[in-house]
Parts: sequence; structure tokens; C-alpha cells
Amino acid sequence: MTVNYNELSKKIKGTFVAKPLSGTLSGHAAGEPFDKHVYEEIKKMFPNNTFRQYEFLNDLYNKNPDIIGFDARQALFNSPTVLFLLSRGKNATDKWTVANPFEEKQNDTADIIVTAGDFYELIDVKTRNISKSAQAPNIISAYKLAQLCVRMIDNKEFDNFTINYFEIDWELKKDKMICCDTHFGCLFDANPSDLYINWAAAMQIQFHVCDLDQTFKGTRKEWTKEYLKHFVNQAKKRADDMIIKFVKPFEKYVN
Amino acid sequence: MTVNYNELSKKIKGTFVAKPLSGTLSGHAAGEPFDKHVYEEIKKMFPNNTFRQYEFLNDLYNKNPDIIGFDARQALFNSPTVLFLLSRGKNATDKWTVANPFEEKQNDTADIIVTAGDFYELIDVKTRNISKSAQAPNIISAYKLAQLCVRMIDNKEFDNFTINYFEIDWELKKDKMICCDTHFGCLFDANPSDLYINWAAAMQIQFHVCDLDQTFKGTRKEWTKEYLKHFVNQAKKRADDMIIKFVKPFEKYVN
Repeated sequence: MTVNYNELSKKIKGTFVAKPLSGTLSGHAAGEPFDKHVYEEIKKMFPNNTFRQYEFLNDLYNKNPDIIGFDARQALFNSPTVLFLLSRGKNATDKWTVANPFEEKQNDTADIIVTAGDFYELIDVKTRNISKSAQAPNIISAYKLAQLCVRMIDNKEFDNFTINYFEIDWELKKDKMICCDTHFGCLFDANPSDLYINWAAAMQIQFHVCDLDQTFKGTRKEWTKEYLKHFVNQAKKRADDMIIKFVKPFEKYVN
Repeated sequence: MTVNYNELSKKIKGTFVAKPLSGTLSGHAAGEPFDKHVYEEIKKMFPNNTFRQYEFLNDLYNKNPDIIGFDARQALFNSPTVLFLLSRGKNATDKWTVANPFEEKQNDTADIIVTAGDFYELIDVKTRNISKSAQAPNIISAYKLAQLCVRMIDNKEFDNFTINYFEIDWELKKDKMICCDTHFGCLFDANPSDLYINWAAAMQIQFHVCDLDQTFKGTRKEWTKEYLKHFVNQAKKRADDMIIKFVKPFEKYVN
């Protein structure tokens, strides 16, 4: 771990951002200024090693302007597993040029990337309006995480990256959004078999960072195996549940 | 059918609404002013019979202030099938009072309701930025539609309501959103077996109204049976696909 989250929390707690002008405070857009605020604080700590995901890719391809096309650009990266998490699709990567770089995308995996030698710390910032009770936010596609685990196992990449979540709890006071609390969690310190998969919501794993247990004591390799077991079991269960809920009650009307 | 959609189209095509102030033109919010615009035009045609969904419920309960609680309020309605589509949950209905009426909800089934005697015409307005190629919008939960079909069959309610979709194609010119085309479709005139169900996106049926075939020639009763057959087949297929895609490839890592 590169970032000191206790130190980060101290810098963020009690600070505020201006309420966005566009009325509604629900959903993704509301917390976005805080995401940028966290990025700036981390960049102060690691000025040369902190990137937005699209900046990271632009930086990598810019340093190698003669390397063109998806396959060649894939080879620029020393970690196929981290690349799987960070890279854009084949079409978008083929089209990339110095004059036509990537722009920010809402569903990028990481909000912030901090590099330390060959180690990659991916940070996703989750913002939460504590005056409303909202369902747990989308964290990552359970399927994408399963594919990630397969790559970790196949490439024996267990120690060169991590995925962390930083939650900012805020409340509105007049026209300011004030950060009243923060929480931090590491995906690989959570018990994989407790992760909730919302199959109907694009198979997203959902949790509030403040509720994420951090008691997993095994190795990363054990984590990947346990997660894959959980994913397969849950997929089987969902397939069974679909028959019970969406087939059985309607069959008598069909025949 | 109560509303004359050709006449409505003539009134809407070429008109414009001001671009919302809050920068982004993606997603649901962008087209909202057009939805209100269509509502106003229909209300001009049927001033006493045109409602927003929440208005309709508020109106019904307001006229019967002595009828209190979910069960009694359910009985106010002559159609259990239409009620299933329009009513809010038990908790919200229990809490309703003259002083605490319903407010608009983004995921209400209908944007507009036009009543004619005991007939209910539900209208959902879909807006589309034609300068962007976007995936087909969410129309209705495939599961909710299956439950609706069961109610139609159980209550023999085939002719007292309809569900129509009105698409507004718009483009931005300077700071105006101009309606350049419109399309209309009736759910029950589409071949039920062609409806696309996006299981990962909350089981939503998705289509662009302009692409909706309108060639179904059977009765409403036949429509419900065909839809339920389609729904059950698709649910079985999705359950099978889940095993193929989310279980099989990962099993060797689990054992």
C-alpha cells in the first residue's frame, strides 16, 4: 500500500466543496467534486505518481508515440492483469493518437491510480449523502472481477497491484457539501464469500465501504480461489432462482 | 385509443424547448422538458381527462378523503389490472393524506394517463438525441409485464386499457432542443416474441419506439399468452446462458 489513508482522511474530513449548480443532489454527479478533491490531495502526496485512469493511459502511449495499435500498446505494459483492469477496448485503443487522446469515462474501473515502481494502487472514490438512506453503490462487475481473478492465477500476479475504496460521507449545509466522515477499505481484505452480487443490476458487487469487513486473513491466491467459488455458486443460485421466480409461476398460463 | 397521435405529432414536430442549464445532455434528464411539453399538448386536447400518474392517484384519493389505507384505496379502483400498473406501494399508499400527496417519481410506469369513461390510455414519452447513437431505452420490466399479463388473464381485462409509447427525436441547435421527428407505437400491437429483454439491466424490455414492429394481428388475450411464452422461454434461456458464461469457464479454478 502506497497511500496513507489515515493521513488522507485527516486532510479531507471537515473540508467542503461547492454544491453543483444543477439542482438535483441524487446519484453519481453529486459527489463528483469530492472525487476530484481526493485526487488533488493524493497528487500533493505523490505528485509524479498520481493519475486519473485516462491520464495514465494517455501518459503511457504518449511516451511511446511510435507504438501504434491495440496489440503493440498492450505489450507496453508489464502486467497483463493490471492492463485488463485499466485498458480501454480494442477499437478505442486503435484510434488513440497524440492528437486524439482518451477522455475521462464514467465507468472507468479506477478513479485514481498511484504507481510505485511496478506496483499499482487503484483507488475508487465513493461519495455518500448521509442525510439520505441509499442502496449500496455499484463497486465492480462480479463477472469482471471473476475474469480478473483468472488472470491473477494464470499470470501469477498476486502482489503487484491492489484495489482500494475510499468513502466520503457528506452533508449539505447551506450551499456547501461538507465531508463529515471518511472510510477506507481494501477489496482483497474483505471476505470474498460475503460480497453481495446484484445480478439484476448489471451483476454489480455492491457495498458501502463503511460496511466492508476487512477480516480476510488468507493470501491473495486464496482470495482469488475463494472469490471464484463464491461467484460460481452465486451464478448457479441465480440461475436456479430465475427458474423458481420467472418460469414456474407462469408455466400454467403457457401450456 | 383516445389520443390521435398523428394530430399530436403535427403539434409537436418543429417545436423546441430550451436546453437545460446543467451542462450534460446525456441520459434521462435531457429530454424531460419535452415530456412535459407533450403532456401539455395532450391536456389541451383532453383538459379534464389528462393526468400525470401521481396526479391521477392524488385525484382519486382526494375525491374519497374518508377512504384510508392501502386495502380500502385499492377498492376505489374498478380495474385491478390497471391499478397494478399505476398504484404506489403499500407503505406509500398507507401514508398518503390530503396534506401529504404523492410527488412525481422517475420510475412511474406511465408519464401520462388519459381516461375515457372506464378506459385508461397510458402513455410513456421517450426522448432521443438523434445526434448520438444510444442503446435502446428501458421500456418496462419484463417481469412486471409478465405479472400484468397474468392479471389480465385472471381478471379477463383485455379491453379497458392500453399502453402506448411516443418517441420524440430532437437535436440541439444553439441553445434550443428542436423536435425533428416523432414516432408512435402501441405495446400490444408489437409481436410479443420479438421484444428484447435485457436481463442484466434490471430485466428491462428495451426498444426504440421507431423500431417497434406493429404487425401483431391477434387478440389481446392471444398477446398475453404469447408474451408469457416468450418470457418463460427467455428466462430459461438466460438461466442456461448463465451456466455457460458464468459457471463453466470458472469451474476448473474452483476444484
